[in-house]
Amino acid sequence: MLNWVHMCAPVISVIQEEISNGELHEILDLVESRSFSQLRNELVDMNPADIAEEMALIEEDKALIVVFRLLPKEQAAEVFSYLEPEDQQRIVEGISDKELASIVNDMFVDDAADFTEEMPANIVRRVLATADPETRKAINQILKYPDNSAGSLMTTELLRLKGEWNVAAAIQYVRHTCDELASITYAFVTDESRHLTGVVSMKDVLAAKDDQLISEIMDDDVIYAKTLDDQAEVAETFKKYDIVSMPVVDGEDRLVGLITIDDVVDVIEEETTEDIYKMAAMAPIEDSYMSTSVFTLARKRVVWLLVLMISATFTGLIITKFESMLTAVAILTSFIPMLMDTCGNAGSQASVSVIRALVLGEVKFSSMLKVIWKEFRVSIIVGLCVAIVNFLRIIVFYYMGMYQLEAGQNIYLIAGVVSATLVLAVICAKFVGCTLPLLADKCKLDPALMASPMITTIVDAVSLLVYFGIASIVLL
Amino acid sequence: MLNWVHMCAPVISVIQEEISNGELHEILDLVESRSFSQLRNELVDMNPADIAEEMALIEEDKALIVVFRLLPKEQAAEVFSYLEPEDQQRIVEGISDKELASIVNDMFVDDAADFTEEMPANIVRRVLATADPETRKAINQILKYPDNSAGSLMTTELLRLKGEWNVAAAIQYVRHTCDELASITYAFVTDESRHLTGVVSMKDVLAAKDDQLISEIMDDDVIYAKTLDDQAEVAETFKKYDIVSMPVVDGEDRLVGLITIDDVVDVIEEETTEDIYKMAAMAPIEDSYMSTSVFTLARKRVVWLLVLMISATFTGLIITKFESMLTAVAILTSFIPMLMDTCGNAGSQASVSVIRALVLGEVKFSSMLKVIWKEFRVSIIVGLCVAIVNFLRIIVFYYMGMYQLEAGQNIYLIAGVVSATLVLAVICAKFVGCTLPLLADKCKLDPALMASPMITTIVDAVSLLVYFGIASIVLL
Repeated sequence: MLNWVHMCAPVISVIQEEISNGELHEILDLVESRSFSQLRNELVDMNPADIAEEMALIEEDKALIVVFRLLPKEQAAEVFSYLEPEDQQRIVEGISDKELASIVNDMFVDDAADFTEEMPANIVRRVLATADPETRKAINQILKYPDNSAGSLMTTELLRLKGEWNVAAAIQYVRHTCDELASITYAFVTDESRHLTGVVSMKDVLAAKDDQLISEIMDDDVIYAKTLDDQAEVAETFKKYDIVSMPVVDGEDRLVGLITIDDVVDVIEEETTEDIYKMAAMAPIEDSYMSTSVFTLARKRVVWLLVLMISATFTGLIITKFESMLTAVAILTSFIPMLMDTCGNAGSQASVSVIRALVLGEVKFSSMLKVIWKEFRVSIIVGLCVAIVNFLRIIVFYYMGMYQLEAGQNIYLIAGVVSATLVLAVICAKFVGCTLPLLADKCKLDPALMASPMITTIVDAVSLLVYFGIASIVLL
Repeated sequence: MLNWVHMCAPVISVIQEEISNGELHEILDLVESRSFSQLRNELVDMNPADIAEEMALIEEDKALIVVFRLLPKEQAAEVFSYLEPEDQQRIVEGISDKELASIVNDMFVDDAADFTEEMPANIVRRVLATADPETRKAINQILKYPDNSAGSLMTTELLRLKGEWNVAAAIQYVRHTCDELASITYAFVTDESRHLTGVVSMKDVLAAKDDQLISEIMDDDVIYAKTLDDQAEVAETFKKYDIVSMPVVDGEDRLVGLITIDDVVDVIEEETTEDIYKMAAMAPIEDSYMSTSVFTLARKRVVWLLVLMISATFTGLIITKFESMLTAVAILTSFIPMLMDTCGNAGSQASVSVIRALVLGEVKFSSMLKVIWKEFRVSIIVGLCVAIVNFLRIIVFYYMGMYQLEAGQNIYLIAGVVSATLVLAVICAKFVGCTLPLLADKCKLDPALMASPMITTIVDAVSLLVYFGIASIVLL
């Protein structure tokens, strides 16, 4: 109970709301009243993510640049990293080359590469021309990898130690260089040709004795990615081994970068969004919903809609075949939407459960028989419940005068036909729903494509065939 | 292109498959042939997550215990943490109290608490009785917080520093104590009454000069959670601020624990699964799909199925109302499934896009008008495309002899009615689809409940009303 109450009134948001609501208006007010020194004092105490969130709300470009220039130098690059590409572009277009260079050189290299990737060509040229040579080289290195690859996700600022160093020397080295690095939680050991030979956590380095060698305390069984590995695979490995960072090697097994878990969290969100879009019969979009154009949204949606529409015409042809029966027993038509929807939903439930279990690695194609047996038992329970309730509902509606029968027709018989159809069609729907995603996975297709819309279309046809089959036996 | 080819042939899996396929059979073989010393050598070189994955495949309890006992002492607790609750229970039931105590004391406290929580009462008693007093206290502390709260997610093994220490002293302290800690990436500073006063990254500690005080280099603007905060809120904060660990304070603002990002990744997965289940009209399940009983699965699914079935009967009543028209122009019936499916899918596309954008914080209720305007334009493009294709399809099918018309009926007029319905109903469907999730969110309901099944049910009725409305004007 406590938990439930708490979900409705989250306490953590207090900190955020204080900043977002209270200080937000103050910032806009301070810009308008040109109280810049007060604004500067406000900004120093705020979290960069919050500053970025509020700067995105400033509509006038000039005001945005003013606020950005008020940021303390050490915060500017960090705030900039948190901004959306649109706002980054607005700022870059308003600042000098010198200011741009200072931001790019101060950003983490992976953030700088992400930002560069989103900019139009003229800004990319300006960024690369103004960045210092080392940064330029690192950005170019990351940019050359394909989108969604491990290489495009990594940063090059990682901690390298030598196996022959002792712990005291390693700690000294870390203390002198760590200011430049994205993360020092793990250090990586390479040989003369920069091949990855081991990994050691900073915790283990600090816990070891001064005269121990790094090669003695490192772990030589390193979990790593290759630059061209797909980011979804990388995220899977992070989850499987519960790791927080992973080294990346190039085609010749040389250590070139490091992927940290905060970037992996973004990948997981991205991949989930893609799955959810596919499950709702849409091609995934690359940007956020609001920043995707109307035309792109339409294009991503219309293809599947057309495919499913054409498939649905076959369901219509089934109805055409049984037209004479529907004319004879007109009331049968009125149960079609309920049958289609209920069986579609029952099938979707099974398919979505299996698709999610596949994504989470809980089921595999080899467990297909177990899954079918499970869904079969579930479908009998669910089908019977739905059928009984439906039988009673039809009888009640009939006695309330909502259905008109013609001479010689028996409402109990009709209700029986509809309910029997429900049980059988729900069983079929769950069977189709649980097997198709597994088969798709086996055929190296994305199981998410076998979610609700596809299942609904197939199950519609199945349930109508069952319906007309039973009706022709019982009623004609 | 490279990217696409690459997605189909992930390279990273090579490492995993080598272990999973190759070594797996070897382990089972080695158990069967009782080659225990060779097995022990194999195990030493394997990753704990892989060992756990393969131990789960050993069906015989005795063999499982044998393999577990062969693990080097320092690996046993880690492998145990990776096992599923079922397998943990099988092991606990086969080992001595002394062995159990050693595992529990070696595990990270949050893992030990997670494990204890999943066990039956008799095992919980054994665990708490055998654990050393400090571990027992820590486990009990975590167990007292409600499921899904920040308190239940945290570990108590965090690095505490004093503000008045200088950097040299702090590093000495870390080197002596870090063996016991879950993470040293961030250190937390508290006052005498254990109130949280600051945070400092180990990177900043190492980068600072020996004689600087911790209070000088720490950041006193700490992002923290309270023990009773909901885990979904905590995950949101991690994502917003791109952080990797977050301190947890109790009701009196005293520092009691630390949440690390690997646990947050699990929370994100869990919350996403809940969303996806709700979007497919199912109550979320607590365990994995395979370990949830048939009866529980049926219970989680039947409620929504019944609700949606009852709602769908209203669609049926609309058909009953227009029965005379359907008898007069029988061909109209055959387009009902296509209209229902297409409009249902069009509505789902909009609702799922908006639900996901809400979850990711990309849209808010306040942007409702913008969203409606966007979906309106999308629906006109999509509706027209679908209508045109459908018009042509009906004409083609007619000339192929698949539809029979009665005297006085005109196929162009009928195709026109169906296509006009498609345009109007798709516009309505997208409107309903994009507004309902936003309204639900505003009313503090879960927007995920407004996904495909709910939208389909509403849109069915709307599209039939539009259909019969247009048909009565044009055809009668």
